[in-house]
Amino acid sequence: MRILITGGAGFIGSHLCDRLITDGHSVIVLDNLITGSTDNVSHLTDTKMFRFINQNVADYIELPKPVDAVMHFASPASPSQTAPNGYLQLPIQTLKAGALGTLNALGVAKRYGARFILASTSEVYGDPLVHPQNENYWGNVDPVGPRSVYDEAKRFAESLTMAYNRTHGVRTRIVRIFNTYGPRMALNDGRVVPNFICQALKGKPLTVYGDGSQTRSFCYVDDLVDGIILLMSSELTEPTNIGNPHEVTILEFANKINSLTKNAAGTILEDKRTTGDPQQRKPDISRAEKLLSWKPHITLEDGLTRTIAYFKNKLSDSM
Amino acid sequence: MRILITGGAGFIGSHLCDRLITDGHSVIVLDNLITGSTDNVSHLTDTKMFRFINQNVADYIELPKPVDAVMHFASPASPSQTAPNGYLQLPIQTLKAGALGTLNALGVAKRYGARFILASTSEVYGDPLVHPQNENYWGNVDPVGPRSVYDEAKRFAESLTMAYNRTHGVRTRIVRIFNTYGPRMALNDGRVVPNFICQALKGKPLTVYGDGSQTRSFCYVDDLVDGIILLMSSELTEPTNIGNPHEVTILEFANKINSLTKNAAGTILEDKRTTGDPQQRKPDISRAEKLLSWKPHITLEDGLTRTIAYFKNKLSDSM
Repeated sequence: MRILITGGAGFIGSHLCDRLITDGHSVIVLDNLITGSTDNVSHLTDTKMFRFINQNVADYIELPKPVDAVMHFASPASPSQTAPNGYLQLPIQTLKAGALGTLNALGVAKRYGARFILASTSEVYGDPLVHPQNENYWGNVDPVGPRSVYDEAKRFAESLTMAYNRTHGVRTRIVRIFNTYGPRMALNDGRVVPNFICQALKGKPLTVYGDGSQTRSFCYVDDLVDGIILLMSSELTEPTNIGNPHEVTILEFANKINSLTKNAAGTILEDKRTTGDPQQRKPDISRAEKLLSWKPHITLEDGLTRTIAYFKNKLSDSM
Repeated sequence: MRILITGGAGFIGSHLCDRLITDGHSVIVLDNLITGSTDNVSHLTDTKMFRFINQNVADYIELPKPVDAVMHFASPASPSQTAPNGYLQLPIQTLKAGALGTLNALGVAKRYGARFILASTSEVYGDPLVHPQNENYWGNVDPVGPRSVYDEAKRFAESLTMAYNRTHGVRTRIVRIFNTYGPRMALNDGRVVPNFICQALKGKPLTVYGDGSQTRSFCYVDDLVDGIILLMSSELTEPTNIGNPHEVTILEFANKINSLTKNAAGTILEDKRTTGDPQQRKPDISRAEKLLSWKPHITLEDGLTRTIAYFKNKLSDSM
């Protein structure tokens, strides 16, 4: 198959490229590199199976050849309040990637009769009032808050995707991606995984906001990619959660990273920042387990070991 | 002032035109007439203060002259499952009016340093879990249900409007419009006011779905227009409810219309249709009361009398 991946130079998109090319497919990446990086796909540029188009997904997409599938993964995605590539620093680009980008990507799928998958997010659940979240929960999102530029863009993108399915018969899929980590997260991404690992590798204490009792569930990127490929091959039109339901507290998580990096500097507790970050979010993955026979396999220890190796390399390169 | 009104040939938009021209302003209407009608503005075409552009708001907007204000009112708005102009029959047009239309209209405001007001809706509250709804309620909307094409489009439009305010300093306002009625509602609109009045004027029994105990709050269009003009002139960037908090049951409402039209055919109860219509929705208007000194003045009896006169005329024209 020939597959278009918008945002294919990003963290998740580039892992999808690797997997699809390994599986014998040919890949066209469309990315404007405002949050992605050519570093993530530079190892692929020599293969005939890979083609790169430097373009904003919010502009009309013209392809050299028809495609069999469209995977729409282009969007800023970090909620960091300070990182330059976070959606709070790119509000209008984020809204456009969700609305115009999804419209353009769906247009390609309609034109060529291709399958379509939307990269949606657990952020459509907002600050959830039910735990864990299953796909029938309608969410709790502030439509006019600063974070709405991401949350509402993705909710709009889901609605538009379903409308193309119902109106034009496009074979659409929607994956709601929960917290994911792994190699190729940006160093300056501002999220907890790169923050902690970089601090640990520099021998500094890890900064924990609040008392560290807030929980997170982290999915290793290879597990996520497995789930996305299974969903893409299925006939499941309804949104599907893909994430790791294994919950850890932020403090446990920090201690695990210190132990794996042999960092003796420990942790430092700081006043909680008001990021609007939910206290707890955890996927109910029973739909994916039942209908895709998918569940995550990689342990936190294994996933972190591989991620730490990547960041170690990256940091030594940049020194 | 020179004012652009998108959707100015629609029910609410055309009443805004009347009011603004009466107040001495000049008006440019942009409307593609998929739900609006030139009948609504034909009495204005002779004045130099009025100009009509037949165009889809989802396409780039080029104006002959700068404007001082932009009022973005273009969108299908009827939730009817059968009416040809309802948003369920126009899903992709509705999503585009909310996303691309709002982007284009905000673009005009940014270009000319004009004020901007977004016509939002009580539908951003979805099927609300709190009563009455104030502006801080985040809503309960299914992002992938059929009605999401309207609800999510408007939530996206609100988020985009706030982003233009925060990022580009555009002086934006957001009005959340609750149930409104009055002359120029489309005969085939499918909503309860035209349905009941047309049945009553034809001497037929009024069809009430369910047991008639569900409540609605109806605002007469002149009251709404007063609220919109006050909001537009204010510095209130946060979303503001404009609606009538006076609740009536659908059965009381039907009986009132039968009494005003002297229709002896009564009512007929039919099984409830599963429209996804909320059982109850009622605005909390304390923000508008406090900050705009606005509240509705026109009684249901007065408003219905004027609306019935309009439909009587309309029906006799069409016979």
